[in-house]
Amino acid sequence: MKALKERIMQDGLCIEGGILKVDNFINHQIDGKLMMEIAKEFVKRFEGTKIDKVITVEASGIAPAIMVAHLLDVPMLFAKKKVPSTMNGILKSEVFSFTKSRSYNICISEEFLKRGERCLFIDDFLANGNAANGILDLAAQVGAEIVGMGFIIEKAFQHGSEMLRNKGVHVESLAIIESIDNCEIRLSE
Amino acid sequence: MKALKERIMQDGLCIEGGILKVDNFINHQIDGKLMMEIAKEFVKRFEGTKIDKVITVEASGIAPAIMVAHLLDVPMLFAKKKVPSTMNGILKSEVFSFTKSRSYNICISEEFLKRGERCLFIDDFLANGNAANGILDLAAQVGAEIVGMGFIIEKAFQHGSEMLRNKGVHVESLAIIESIDNCEIRLSE
Repeated sequence: MKALKERIMQDGLCIEGGILKVDNFINHQIDGKLMMEIAKEFVKRFEGTKIDKVITVEASGIAPAIMVAHLLDVPMLFAKKKVPSTMNGILKSEVFSFTKSRSYNICISEEFLKRGERCLFIDDFLANGNAANGILDLAAQVGAEIVGMGFIIEKAFQHGSEMLRNKGVHVESLAIIESIDNCEIRLSE
Repeated sequence: MKALKERIMQDGLCIEGGILKVDNFINHQIDGKLMMEIAKEFVKRFEGTKIDKVITVEASGIAPAIMVAHLLDVPMLFAKKKVPSTMNGILKSEVFSFTKSRSYNICISEEFLKRGERCLFIDDFLANGNAANGILDLAAQVGAEIVGMGFIIEKAFQHGSEMLRNKGVHVESLAIIESIDNCEIRLSE
């Protein structure tokens, strides 16, 4: 996706330890126009796949996920990182965050994920695929199906995509970072 | 907003202590179509106001805020509830959460909120207005202006709107709950 790749080269910042910071258009400040283009591209990539629901993880996944859900005219469900006091019937899965170097639970209410539902998972980053694995686990707990996973940015050097494809998941990444060694961003063609 | 009010009456749940649960279309599972209608209504309510940026607080504010930002073709900034390890130059404000009965910080990077910027604050709920006050405080710290505040649901019995209007803020709420005594939802006309 050309506009996204250009934006990453223009505004992406490297931080020591393999972290790519895209705070000014994806993770903190969000470019609404670019985000809609991103959502349209996801819809195109998963054309022909029957999708009942879009699923994501708070907070950075919400913006692309709600736009994809709007375009597909299906509901969007976001997994929470804290168990809300007002939520019953909670499904949980433990996820280790590479960026934050610690584990956290993602949880959803069992009310909103049902056996046989065909879900498209949308998120901002694919690194080692731990959050994606958490979602696969939540879906497996109820017998829902993850029919695809779409990521805005994939960090290929952390091999999450390989791991997910080996599990048979249809993965689409709109921009693939080959490396950020010496703080030089190298995108794949 | 008729569609929203009908949905609240159909799917809203009361929880003891004045909490209204709208988990199945706003706070956890989100109806993408309704959310776009909500965003269009916000744009209409603030027509004629010059807006440079939409601002919100993670996580439930992100979906309506990104859609409003997309319609207005301006960036959206979401305040975070935890200080990210990769963020520098952080502005903070303490907020007391009514639903969670505890205080938390909301924070933004000073990079993305500038003196003189005209911001529209969008959020899911207006209760006593504590989060809104936190945003006013953050804006005041840098000299940015909050030119309006739009809420999907206002709980009138918690008087946040009164407090904000007394400070001269232009407040718009798309559905106003007069009371939820005895777990009966009463909407204003």
